[in-house]
Formats: sequence, structure tokens, C-alpha cells
Amino acid sequence: MHPTPIALDAMGGDHMPDAAVAGAAEAAREGIHVALVGDPTRLEEACRAHGATNLQVVPAEDVIGMDEHASDVRRRTQSSVMRAAAEVKEGRASALVSMGHSGATMAAALFTFGRIKGVERPAIVANLPSQTGTVTLLDVGANADVKPSMMRQFAVMGRTYASIMHGIERPSVGLLSIGEEPSKGNELTLAAHELMRDLDGFAGNVEGRDIFAGTTDVVVTDGFTGNVVLKLAEGEAKTLFGWIREALRSSTRAKLGGALAKPALKRVAARLDPSTYGAQPLIGVAQPTFIGHGSSDARAVANALRFADQTVREGVVSRVADALAAARGDA
Amino acid sequence: MHPTPIALDAMGGDHMPDAAVAGAAEAAREGIHVALVGDPTRLEEACRAHGATNLQVVPAEDVIGMDEHASDVRRRTQSSVMRAAAEVKEGRASALVSMGHSGATMAAALFTFGRIKGVERPAIVANLPSQTGTVTLLDVGANADVKPSMMRQFAVMGRTYASIMHGIERPSVGLLSIGEEPSKGNELTLAAHELMRDLDGFAGNVEGRDIFAGTTDVVVTDGFTGNVVLKLAEGEAKTLFGWIREALRSSTRAKLGGALAKPALKRVAARLDPSTYGAQPLIGVAQPTFIGHGSSDARAVANALRFADQTVREGVVSRVADALAAARGDA
Repeated sequence: MHPTPIALDAMGGDHMPDAAVAGAAEAAREGIHVALVGDPTRLEEACRAHGATNLQVVPAEDVIGMDEHASDVRRRTQSSVMRAAAEVKEGRASALVSMGHSGATMAAALFTFGRIKGVERPAIVANLPSQTGTVTLLDVGANADVKPSMMRQFAVMGRTYASIMHGIERPSVGLLSIGEEPSKGNELTLAAHELMRDLDGFAGNVEGRDIFAGTTDVVVTDGFTGNVVLKLAEGEAKTLFGWIREALRSSTRAKLGGALAKPALKRVAARLDPSTYGAQPLIGVAQPTFIGHGSSDARAVANALRFADQTVREGVVSRVADALAAARGDA
Repeated sequence: MHPTPIALDAMGGDHMPDAAVAGAAEAAREGIHVALVGDPTRLEEACRAHGATNLQVVPAEDVIGMDEHASDVRRRTQSSVMRAAAEVKEGRASALVSMGHSGATMAAALFTFGRIKGVERPAIVANLPSQTGTVTLLDVGANADVKPSMMRQFAVMGRTYASIMHGIERPSVGLLSIGEEPSKGNELTLAAHELMRDLDGFAGNVEGRDIFAGTTDVVVTDGFTGNVVLKLAEGEAKTLFGWIREALRSSTRAKLGGALAKPALKRVAARLDPSTYGAQPLIGVAQPTFIGHGSSDARAVANALRFADQTVREGVVSRVADALAAARGDA
């Protein structure tokens, strides 16, 4: 158990505060300490409704709506996400987790925590299932436009993350492009490739098909392409399983086969479930920060809290900082 | 039947000339005329081996290897792809189809045919299956770096193509981005969005998940993102079906279920088979041009020839030219 709890923005998201309370209660049963940040009246009601009597509540009067501007965050110091960030900044909590407005969470983390020394831009990391295990993909949306030097940092941060969180000794890093040869790509990836050549574990360009093939442990891309990739991957899995369900209702024979094959097919679907990790780490900021889907339910919240807890215990932030310092030394 | 055959580069690709001869023979049985362009000795041998006695052969001494430079094409006038393009240019063939070096095919088409009047850059079109039918995605690789004005043209060309080839009366067009709001995107898509506002059928931004959902009939993107999307979509489908096959061998119960469900699951897999169209049209050049996978087999070649034949009969090139002229008038 930590000396300090994880600060959970208990108001940001579609199913709040109920999902936050139920998820925090689940995590608490496993010994993960959580501070629920939000409207105390509503939180205490939700705690009673869920029979969660021992959860800590940190009051916050305001909440950033999903349709508000991320840039408003700085002056909304009483919002749940800013209050949760303050808990971390002031040492009363070990990590920030929010299922609310992702731009607002990023802004709150950047403004309150600042960046790890030398980091040009933080990046959002996604964990995708692959034929060989888990692929660490970044950036999946923190930066719509990036510079080649940022992509080099994404590589160093992603590699450190993959080695700690997925237990890979010397993770390989691919640069997402449109051909394996170093001469294939757009202006951005051609320049990034040059800057990445000297990095430990750099395996050159990879293509779209290499992500699910698991050709490399880490895949580096700009936040625009990464966001498209992530949403496409989730959307394709959803569509495909929809088609399979439909096909397995198309005849008596298919129905019988489907009933027998159901447990096996469910295991495949579980492998592709985006809520396995519950939230995505924003790496490069100076405190552990996790951004979840607005649609998160209690299970996703609990998974996010477990994941945040593991990250804190592993000391990811300071190890990413060390790796960046070493990579600067190399260059 | 056409008065003029389709010119097939019978040497470019991994399984040539056999796949070309067998595919052309299959198409010929349906009344599609094909001119096989390549080494006459090897082609005549392959024709004998496949019992295809009545296929037309156009001799070409040279062939562009998969690892050669596309820029060499101009001076390799005796290569199979350049000879095939010349057949079209000189009116002896109606369309160019190649499963060889895609950069070389693009270069041969651009150099030999030129662009449709006013087109800044041609684009490669992919047809992807979606929940609502078929999505027309472009560009999937002709241009790694594009300008916003090119994306506007891709929208006009893609819409015309979708309306003709998929029989959609007023196709809707989405701009691939990282949020639905016009303010979400990278510098390129923000500028492209502004230029596309006035276009018929423009439905605003779409996200990665909207491709398989079929939110719009056409999805416009730059050739880098489109290429990543296409290869990811193919790779994910392949990985997923691999996992399903594996899961259906995991127990006696799963095996029995799998055997019963097999025909239903095969229909789903067929929906995702990238060789359904056999090749991808390069639109924006002044003659019908089709680029196939290097790994194409006889079935993919036959499908590409059927698809090229349909495109020629529908007069896609001149209708795209008309649509572009009209869009210029609108602007």
C-alpha cells in the first residue's frame, strides 16, 4: 500500500460520480488507496449508495464539462481535475487519474506538474494487443503536430515505459511509416528516422501492418497518426465482432456452432478490450498522470487505478527522466 | 466487350508471369479482352502451361524489379510497365494494370498519360468494407506529403468515384481527423477543412473509428495516414482471424463449435479480403490506371481486370474530369 492515495477526478466523465465511487471501492478492496475529488454532497451520496463507507473525499466545487475549452483550466482552480492535480503537486496524492475532458486533464497536468527536465512535449501512450504480446504506441493524441526531435524523445520514453510496464528487457522501437526502407516516409518521418538512428533498440521503419504483428515492442508516431490508428483499431475490432455475432445468428447450424465456440471467441474479444488498462498514461509530465475514456464504467475506473498504482510503485516517472538524461548524453 | 483490350503488365509482381496469364485467361472467359505485356518467350510458355491459346501478347524486353528506383522508369521505355502504358497512350488499350513496383507504375502513368486537367496530384483509392457498405478511402499512398488544396481535390475525385463505382447517389465525404469538431486536427487538416466546407456532400471531420462504422461514404486523408490506415486495417483483420482460428482449436468443444460455425465465419473473412478488388485505382491521371499488390495471385489479377473493365465502361476518368471542372466553377 502507498503512503499516499491516488487522486481520482470523480466528476469528469459520463458516468460520474457513480463509476468513480464503485471503481474506487473495488480498488480499495485490493489495498489501493484512492482520494475521490469532487462535489462532497454528491460523492457522499454515491458512497452510501455503493456501501463504500471508508473512501477519502477531497472537496471540489467545480467541474470542467466535456464541451468546454481546455484552455479554461488554469483559472478553474476549484475544478475537480485541478484540485486532484493539486493533491499530487502538494504531496498528498501519488498520481492523477481522470476520465473527464482529456484536453483539460493534459492542461491541468502540464500546468500543475510541469514537464520532466528536457522533455519538449509529453505524449499519450496506448497499449495495444499484438501477435507477440503488447505494443506500446505513442503519441496517440497529445500533439497533433510534432517535430522530429519530439519523436526521438517519444522513442526514449516509450522504450523505458515498455521495459518497466511490460517487463521487456531491451525493447525494440519502430518508427511508423509507409515502407520499411529509411527512404520511405513523409518529411516528418524521414527527418525523425535520421535523429533516431543512434538510439538503443531502434529497429527502423515499421508499417501499419506491423502494429498487430508485433514486429517491434514500441511504435513511435505523431499524435495525429497515432490517434487515427488507435480509434481505427478499436473501431475495426468492434465492427468485426459485430459481423461475427451477426453471422453466428444466420442459421441453425451457425447458432449451434456459435453457442459452443462462445467461450473461445470471448477470450479473443477480451484480448482486444480497450478498457483492459482503463486509462492511458501521459508520459513526459513530472507526476504520474492517466487519461481515461469519458465513457468509462466502474470496471474501467478500477483498472485505471490498478494501472496507476503499478506505475507509481515502479517509479516510471523518475526512470523515464533518467533514460532521457542518458539519451541526451549519448547524442 | 471493349473494342480495345486492357494492358496488363504481365512481368511486374511476385508470381509473374503465371498469375498474369491465369488471371487474364479467367477474365477472357467472361469476355474481358486483355493484352499481356512482357517477355514473349516466357509469356508463350505460360500460356501453353495454362492452356490459354488466344491471349494477345505485346512484347517487352525489360522489367522494373521491386527493389529498383521508380525514377528509373522514364528511360526504361522497353520495360513491361512502360510498354503497357504506351499501349494505352497510343489507343491500343483502354487501361493500365500492374502488380509490379507501385512507385514505378505511378511514375509510368504520370509520365505517359499526364494528369487530368487541373489535378495537382493523383491519389490512390482503397475500397474498405464498412458497417454500411463500402468506404472509399483516399489517398492511400500516392503522396506522403500533401497540401490542403490537394485534399479538396481528393474529396471531389473520391466522391465522383464512389458515386459511379458504388452506385451512391450523393456520397457523403468525411475528412479524417482526431475529433469531430472543425477545431480538432493537425495544421494540415484544419486548413483542408476550411477549403472543403463549400463542397457538395462534405460532412466535416471523421475519426479513425468512423471508417469501419461507415459514417461517411468517402474518407479523405493524406497519403501517409491513408497508407498506415490501410495496412493497419488489413493487418488487424489478419491477426484477429488468426486468434479466432487458434481459439477454435483450443478445446474439443471449441473445435466442434468452430466446425459448425466455419461457413458463417468464412463469409465474414471474405468481407475483409483485400483481394476483392484486386487492385487500387490511381485517380487523377488521364487514363485508367490500377496498382495491385506485388503478391497478387491469379484470382487477384482476374479481379483487378474485372474492376478495370467496369471502370472503363463507366467512363470514370472523364466523369472525374467533369466533376473537378464543376468544383472549380463552384469555388
